[in-house]
Amino acid sequence: MSNMIAEILATGDEIRSGALIDSNSAHIAQQLEEAGVEVIRHSCTGDDLDVLASILREIGDRSDIAVVTGGLGPTADDLSAEAAATAAGVDLVLDNKALGWVEEAFEKRKWPMSESNKKQAVLPEGAEPLYNPVGTAPGFLLKIGRCSFFFLPGVPFEMRRMISDTVLPRLIKMQGNHREFHLSRTITTFGLGEASTNERLAGLTERFPGIKLGLRAKFPEIHIKFYVCGNDEGVLKKMMEEGAEWIAQKMGNNVISPQGASMEAVVGNLLNQKKATVAVAESCTGGLVSHWLTNVPGSSDYFLFSGVTYSNQAKIDVLGVSSETLKEFGAVHEETAKEMADRVRRISGATYGLSTSGIAGPGGGTSEKPVGTICVGLATPSAVEGHWFGFPFKRRSRNKQIFAMTALDLLRRELMNDDS
Amino acid sequence: MSNMIAEILATGDEIRSGALIDSNSAHIAQQLEEAGVEVIRHSCTGDDLDVLASILREIGDRSDIAVVTGGLGPTADDLSAEAAATAAGVDLVLDNKALGWVEEAFEKRKWPMSESNKKQAVLPEGAEPLYNPVGTAPGFLLKIGRCSFFFLPGVPFEMRRMISDTVLPRLIKMQGNHREFHLSRTITTFGLGEASTNERLAGLTERFPGIKLGLRAKFPEIHIKFYVCGNDEGVLKKMMEEGAEWIAQKMGNNVISPQGASMEAVVGNLLNQKKATVAVAESCTGGLVSHWLTNVPGSSDYFLFSGVTYSNQAKIDVLGVSSETLKEFGAVHEETAKEMADRVRRISGATYGLSTSGIAGPGGGTSEKPVGTICVGLATPSAVEGHWFGFPFKRRSRNKQIFAMTALDLLRRELMNDDS
Repeated sequence: MSNMIAEILATGDEIRSGALIDSNSAHIAQQLEEAGVEVIRHSCTGDDLDVLASILREIGDRSDIAVVTGGLGPTADDLSAEAAATAAGVDLVLDNKALGWVEEAFEKRKWPMSESNKKQAVLPEGAEPLYNPVGTAPGFLLKIGRCSFFFLPGVPFEMRRMISDTVLPRLIKMQGNHREFHLSRTITTFGLGEASTNERLAGLTERFPGIKLGLRAKFPEIHIKFYVCGNDEGVLKKMMEEGAEWIAQKMGNNVISPQGASMEAVVGNLLNQKKATVAVAESCTGGLVSHWLTNVPGSSDYFLFSGVTYSNQAKIDVLGVSSETLKEFGAVHEETAKEMADRVRRISGATYGLSTSGIAGPGGGTSEKPVGTICVGLATPSAVEGHWFGFPFKRRSRNKQIFAMTALDLLRRELMNDDS
Repeated sequence: MSNMIAEILATGDEIRSGALIDSNSAHIAQQLEEAGVEVIRHSCTGDDLDVLASILREIGDRSDIAVVTGGLGPTADDLSAEAAATAAGVDLVLDNKALGWVEEAFEKRKWPMSESNKKQAVLPEGAEPLYNPVGTAPGFLLKIGRCSFFFLPGVPFEMRRMISDTVLPRLIKMQGNHREFHLSRTITTFGLGEASTNERLAGLTERFPGIKLGLRAKFPEIHIKFYVCGNDEGVLKKMMEEGAEWIAQKMGNNVISPQGASMEAVVGNLLNQKKATVAVAESCTGGLVSHWLTNVPGSSDYFLFSGVTYSNQAKIDVLGVSSETLKEFGAVHEETAKEMADRVRRISGATYGLSTSGIAGPGGGTSEKPVGTICVGLATPSAVEGHWFGFPFKRRSRNKQIFAMTALDLLRRELMNDDS
């Protein structure tokens, strides 16, 4: 890290009162840390002029950089400019550059500009207006105490754009020769819990003393995030590569992607590489497997069809599963899952057929097939497999997610192993 | 509000560095505010003893109540007890009551207890241990300065349980006769943007001076949240009822639920009430309509089948859409959507057939049918309708969501109007 320390302040009654979760601050922290600036503290407060001004003064006394989000709009409870002026002990003035931007933004959108929108161009004296390419409210940069404050809009995509376009380039310039590089990378995994992942990775920090490790449970995946920082970008990149390889080896085929890609993107890539297609027959996952697969742009190249056959009758009528199979084994069984996968593959003409049938809960469990039971069928050009898994979750949404991920993971492993 | 003011502090390097979004603080803020305690500030900092202790002292000087999350685990970077002891100027001591709870928690889980887990029972002298019914780390209550600090685990479900079981009852006791009631309610809506919703609700605060309004965009829904607070619970309840009625009238049939229920739960309820069933034919929504519908426990009572027919061939083979229709109108057209809805209704034997076909993007748009175009078909026992909508979004995920919501909303309106 360089020697600069930073703080983040989120403003607004919605966040203060808990009506809205503040996701801006996490994004900003990540971006600042990757730019080599250490974030020491986040704060959040509501639309109260005195409290705001006093927090700005506090931050101005102890940090070098601050990013403040929210409070730049045209209404009476948008107080950021006024609070900043109070904290800095300066007046508010109409900034002509900012006014030009606001007028231009309204013109572009063909919106009528009201008198109150002019307020968005009224800034503390001495502030530098910051261009907002995707919204109507300009940001501004102001020194309060020893700290450079970036005031940005609270709308996430406006804030994100201004962080990358304006804040980061300036931070790099401010750091000059003291710049440190901060690299991070994420490896997405599935199949091992947090504790087992930790065990597998024991020894990493001894082997690579410069690497800092962070596990992040993004249910049902585990994301392994690791960081390095220092002055020599080349050395750091090499260390990252070696670290990634070491981790990938320890995690084996639980690795979804060493580049942090999602399960559905990896499965889609593998299908594309093989010029193969897939069709799905879903029962308990209720469409989630298809929803994930079709989240990938271009998925129509390999995703042909999914039959969400919730009722037994639909399994028989649409897929052509035999009523004997359903009678003999029940809807939740490997044999039924196999027949679903095989049938959906045949009727769609896909290379692979994938199926799910299970008990997502909260009702419907029995002692033999409790909530959390999932059967997955996978039909390939050469075989049809059935798998049975039991998960300990009671919540429907958790079960649907881990069921769908388990099915996609079986397809992924098949595509990885099959070298045809 | 009573006269008590509160702060929230989230600790941990994952949150400080932005690797993890802090959703705990929003939950805590909401709970405290509903209990009549005003939250003035949230903070977050990493695992640094000095910074932690100094923030605890600051909070101790200015607030009555604080809730701190995280840092109660057995590892070296779990620093909450040590920081609290430093800030309060007391020693750390092994608390026998807490130790008993930790031992009991490990026994119950049949986990071996290591020496390091004893650390979880080492608390600042004078702290009162707080029972954690769902985890191994006890919390504790400690006065620092003039402020009562509740130290809770960072694991969300442990924290939530301890807020409701321990923190809230104590806050009510602490407030004694000064207790104020704080009621809130959410009305879920769809179909109007934030600005139009605001316009429709202009006049609410004049009509009901005690009601505070907050709009929350939960794309693609708008949630109207409103609050009242005061000493007389009966008066407040009446005000809430009248306010809800006023809002519902202004919003008309854009209201999904005056009780804050989700679209899929409302549609499910209406289908259940009518003993009706639904089947879906999805193209561009890729399974999302089915995924949402099946998120509701018990949805197998009314959800029969969904055909996610991404390819034209699947539309023909599985649904029986005629190749002439596809040739004449293309896949994205009201006529095709109508035929999809009609066919899926017939092959599944459902009361209602619902279909989507559109361009989710980012590719595939034309000047005639740009990205954001969605056609929805709805087949009822007496008619088949087709609808055409254009949305301005470019992002695939946004389009899938608003497309799926638009389709469900058409079904909801049909179910509301149809009094058969």
